[in-house]
Amino acid sequence: MNTAYQQLRSIFARISRFNHLSAIAHWDMQTMMSHEGSQARSEALAEIDVLCHQLLCDPKVGVLLESASKETLEGADEANLTEMRNTYRRAVVLPDALIEARSLATGKCGFAWRTQRPANDWVGFASNLHEVVKLTREEAKIRAEATGVSRYDALLDLYEPGMRSEELDRIFGDLKTWLPDLLRRVVAKQAPNPPLPLQGPFDPGKQRELALKVMRILGFNFSAGRLDSSAHPFSGGVPQDVRITTRYDETSFMPALFATIHETGHGRYEQNLPQAWRDQPAGLARSMGIHESQSLMFEMQVARSTPFLQMLHPLVVTAFGQSPALTEANFIALAQRARPGLIRVDADEISYPLHVILRYEIEKALIEGQIEVDDIPALWNQKMQDYLGIGTEGNYQNGCMQDIHWTQGAFGYFPTYTLGAMYAAQLFQAALRALPSLNGEISEENLQGLSGWLEENIWSKGSLHRTDKLMTDATGEALNTKHFRAHLERRYL
Amino acid sequence: MNTAYQQLRSIFARISRFNHLSAIAHWDMQTMMSHEGSQARSEALAEIDVLCHQLLCDPKVGVLLESASKETLEGADEANLTEMRNTYRRAVVLPDALIEARSLATGKCGFAWRTQRPANDWVGFASNLHEVVKLTREEAKIRAEATGVSRYDALLDLYEPGMRSEELDRIFGDLKTWLPDLLRRVVAKQAPNPPLPLQGPFDPGKQRELALKVMRILGFNFSAGRLDSSAHPFSGGVPQDVRITTRYDETSFMPALFATIHETGHGRYEQNLPQAWRDQPAGLARSMGIHESQSLMFEMQVARSTPFLQMLHPLVVTAFGQSPALTEANFIALAQRARPGLIRVDADEISYPLHVILRYEIEKALIEGQIEVDDIPALWNQKMQDYLGIGTEGNYQNGCMQDIHWTQGAFGYFPTYTLGAMYAAQLFQAALRALPSLNGEISEENLQGLSGWLEENIWSKGSLHRTDKLMTDATGEALNTKHFRAHLERRYL
Repeated sequence: MNTAYQQLRSIFARISRFNHLSAIAHWDMQTMMSHEGSQARSEALAEIDVLCHQLLCDPKVGVLLESASKETLEGADEANLTEMRNTYRRAVVLPDALIEARSLATGKCGFAWRTQRPANDWVGFASNLHEVVKLTREEAKIRAEATGVSRYDALLDLYEPGMRSEELDRIFGDLKTWLPDLLRRVVAKQAPNPPLPLQGPFDPGKQRELALKVMRILGFNFSAGRLDSSAHPFSGGVPQDVRITTRYDETSFMPALFATIHETGHGRYEQNLPQAWRDQPAGLARSMGIHESQSLMFEMQVARSTPFLQMLHPLVVTAFGQSPALTEANFIALAQRARPGLIRVDADEISYPLHVILRYEIEKALIEGQIEVDDIPALWNQKMQDYLGIGTEGNYQNGCMQDIHWTQGAFGYFPTYTLGAMYAAQLFQAALRALPSLNGEISEENLQGLSGWLEENIWSKGSLHRTDKLMTDATGEALNTKHFRAHLERRYL
Repeated sequence: MNTAYQQLRSIFARISRFNHLSAIAHWDMQTMMSHEGSQARSEALAEIDVLCHQLLCDPKVGVLLESASKETLEGADEANLTEMRNTYRRAVVLPDALIEARSLATGKCGFAWRTQRPANDWVGFASNLHEVVKLTREEAKIRAEATGVSRYDALLDLYEPGMRSEELDRIFGDLKTWLPDLLRRVVAKQAPNPPLPLQGPFDPGKQRELALKVMRILGFNFSAGRLDSSAHPFSGGVPQDVRITTRYDETSFMPALFATIHETGHGRYEQNLPQAWRDQPAGLARSMGIHESQSLMFEMQVARSTPFLQMLHPLVVTAFGQSPALTEANFIALAQRARPGLIRVDADEISYPLHVILRYEIEKALIEGQIEVDDIPALWNQKMQDYLGIGTEGNYQNGCMQDIHWTQGAFGYFPTYTLGAMYAAQLFQAALRALPSLNGEISEENLQGLSGWLEENIWSKGSLHRTDKLMTDATGEALNTKHFRAHLERRYL
């Protein structure tokens, strides 16, 4: 007779096999699917979601978790059991009626948003968002009661397990004291010498060749993954077969190139998650913040650094030919340009956290019931003025309607972007201490040292440790903003 | 409360949604999957197979089928219930232990075959095939007892429901009386003027462009499907999103072109199966033979006809330029060349049925216990001499080891290829009677008349009728060899 823990392992392995099919079908939907396949695909994916939810919420799983907690387990198995328990509790706590209502409301809100955003239709959007917020508050209340944390924290914990708003307030509060000023100083410094703009068109085939070359330099394993294109770049698939995508803009090769580098960071994390735990919760990526730290490690810490850009420059010239905008100095200036703007996804690495802090403050107040949906536009405008110096009054489409997250009820997700930037800076500094020749290696297309360090300290750990332990083990200190600040000052001042 | 039939509809719809994910993941495995993704993919696909088998064999389904048979149903629902019942009975009759043993044995046999075939290792192969045959005989025995037909017929019925070996003996017996002689006469007729061989290389990109053009002419719906490449051409996906593949050979554009046309026939059938029945057994393609008839309709009846080849010729010249081998007459001669050879998949349409009859006679005797695995090579050699005039003594790799079917336990499948050729010829003649200007339309890239006729008579019928009724309704006569013979004599003598 198998132990309760062994039985749980089988159940979670089975769920992971269904998740494999779901991941591939999701990737296919974004990259390959024919127009008329859309409805049948949505139905098939919903069906397998329901199946996985049922398998996970089977009362038998609760009983086995009880029994397993009395069994003697090795450290890693104990960590796996903890992750199983957390996964189970998160799934089982919501009543089916709420899950269904939320699914309907977010489906309606997200679908309408696609046309309401270009139409700048805040009133129409708000009426749908009301319902999503109402249901997400219910969800947050139930989760909070089950876990003993605040309502917002109960949602945050879904994306960044263990993180609390108290710590976010400390970190984001600190950023707010110096980041807006730093941004102004960098903009002032760069203003007298704006880089020449790129002259397109840039052939998508050549962009793809360059992207593949850079992925090889960054160590992406093409026996366990591939690059395709989709409307929005993403990283999907399974660790054994990571599917990253990019999107080619003929007027500039930079968005596709840096999106590919960003997704390569996500992809390398997935490819190098611990092999022995691949079908178990302990083998999954630790958190959304740690995931983002790996993409930002490759995009911001490595690829936008001067040594890397210097190494990259000849490859770019080989791909697209000589031109005044493609001198080494101009190429670097383009890649390191700070330009505060309205749109989060277009933001440079200095502005980006300010977009996130704005959203964090609004969504936290919204979930905790301190503000209502109708208060959002005025708050958005005010905070954009305060943090980035740009107003958004009446401009909903490029203001509070620009992101898809809230339409999907994903409150608590935004902070992970900026946690990722902090983690990345702190990890890169720790890697530099361990590998003094790292910057020299990077300028010679050699990412082996950094990869080895990341594999040892982050990738191979999966979810075997809590995030705070992962960070202190890897860097010798708790999460802080010091390294991010030093990084920005070094690169931009 | 839903009726039993309505409950069955829900269960079968759910299974069809899981089959959707399985179909896409299978396609992905052949076209997109990374090398290292192979094992996890096999496990995921096996898991969803097991799930669908469990859902289908749930005792509740048996009870509902009993109850539903007492409910009053419309004609089409009655047909759907019949298909449900057949699907259920086929799935439920085999003990789990046999399914598992068969899966292991076929897995082992197929895997070893990949290296044994190039090594011409009959002895090694035979030892694995013994086990597969032993288990398939057990399967056939169980199925035969459950359905009251002979053992071989019980397997044949899995691929061509309603077909019996008595009828195959009649049809194949008839073919054997005239086909070998016809082949010899055609070969003799073509011998004095062999066509000039093609001069490659033929750029795969241009081959693909040509294939896409021809698919458009043939009416493939690109909003509900796509063309990719894979090691072996196939048609997969789902009716809303059909995935056909081809393979580009740089020394000749003909294999990819005609493989694409063949798979387009399969694809158009799938795309035009009855919309109202898409998630039900009655909405599936009728049989493997009818499926093959649609691919052969497009490849053999239409695309290798002189009017079509004349229309196609300028497109080929546009793609690959003028050359002595690409005069209209030489192109037609290449496309209509009869050349008996060792390999079934390379056979022309005159030789092809003889390859199939040989396999049918051997596999039927094997399943019925009249011969053993060790008898296969001598029989193969004898029949190749008799039917095609070519010996295979000692040449196992291009003799009895050339096909994958038996390694997978797929005994009873081969006849459907030749049934498809008979159906296609008979259907095309019926279409010609209904559409006297059809050949003229084909020479003008106009396939609308033929498509409309096929949609009305075959595609829209799904599995709503038995195959014999489908054929008599469409053609006014029972399946026979007369039209196939007339077709070959017209084209080749």
